[in-house]
Amino acid sequence: MTLAELQALIAEMYSSKDEARGIDGTFMWLMEEVGELAAALRDGTPEEQAAEFADVLAWLATIANVARIDLDRAVVEKYGTGCPGCGQMVCRCDAGEKP
Amino acid sequence: MTLAELQALIAEMYSSKDEARGIDGTFMWLMEEVGELAAALRDGTPEEQAAEFADVLAWLATIANVARIDLDRAVVEKYGTGCPGCGQMVCRCDAGEKP
Repeated sequence: MTLAELQALIAEMYSSKDEARGIDGTFMWLMEEVGELAAALRDGTPEEQAAEFADVLAWLATIANVARIDLDRAVVEKYGTGCPGCGQMVCRCDAGEKP
Repeated sequence: MTLAELQALIAEMYSSKDEARGIDGTFMWLMEEVGELAAALRDGTPEEQAAEFADVLAWLATIANVARIDLDRAVVEKYGTGCPGCGQMVCRCDAGEKP
């Protein structure tokens, strides 16, 4: 599945609700799912972890849809030609630095 | 770009650092990027918002790599046949419910 297909799938499923909720209301749901992902990473089975990753991706896609952001282009522009910090395909940034 | 390609790109770029950081250390970076996304959604340009979405996706891919979760399969299994709440491709869950 491409990032564009993910955004289209989530738009088909939830766009009318998403527009009504807006970004602020939707962001709260993303935060709840991020919390559930943290819990699953601590104590969950691989299947439970996978389901929580899917939920976080779905809410992230929803917010991108409402904000009219193309996730595919966003990733390609920031990471497509190398690490944003050092420009290398295999990051050589100092271990203490961000990436 | 597919979700699998995103995971492979981030693995190539950061896998040695990611393994050293582990899930807990990596999750802190994800949280920082989520905060930056919130700020960009409030006050940022579309370009700044896109860059923050890319960063959140990159850190989410990193955590999935460390946890050995296949994001593509995770999304297809949870959302591929319809809304997890109502089972419909266009969600009909009550507006007060989660999705």
